[in-house]
Amino acid sequence: MSTQLEMAMDTMIRIFHRYSCKEGDRFKLNKGELKMFLQRELTDFLSVSPRCSLVDKIMQDLDANKDNEVDFNEFVVMVAALTIACNDYFVEQLKKKGTER
Amino acid sequence: MSTQLEMAMDTMIRIFHRYSCKEGDRFKLNKGELKMFLQRELTDFLSVSPRCSLVDKIMQDLDANKDNEVDFNEFVVMVAALTIACNDYFVEQLKKKGTER
Repeated sequence: MSTQLEMAMDTMIRIFHRYSCKEGDRFKLNKGELKMFLQRELTDFLSVSPRCSLVDKIMQDLDANKDNEVDFNEFVVMVAALTIACNDYFVEQLKKKGTER
Repeated sequence: MSTQLEMAMDTMIRIFHRYSCKEGDRFKLNKGELKMFLQRELTDFLSVSPRCSLVDKIMQDLDANKDNEVDFNEFVVMVAALTIACNDYFVEQLKKKGTER
């Protein structure tokens, strides 16, 4: 049986491909696929409005090789950066609690 | 309710802290904690033997800032690299299947 961490890694792979296969290159997210992904999968973390400018901004930030698409490596970098930001917040709260005692 | 991706991110954070809090700096994995983490959480991906030399090697590779501990950022880089390797394998298999048709 897989561990929780292995299932989390599997989830990242499956979710990327769920969106990347919708149109165009099936191994990359284009702007429409990225927008749909952000709206449906990161609702708690990002309050993503349907404004095109915001999706454009995120695409520009993620698209390291400037092909106007997000590949799996670029996608994982985004998930990693968001997870690190969440962890920083979590640790900060824990440390605050510690000093309140 | 959280999405699957958000739950996967939460899993990464919780698992890191489950091991990092065991001894020493509670926000970092020392060698003993890293070894326990590898043996228990990455059984499918890595066939981790209890040999110290292998844990030493992984610690050296992960420990970017050379403090002999693995912090959360270094941990996420490892999970990201493993996930990318798994995805590469998955995509290769998919492409092979495509050419067999």
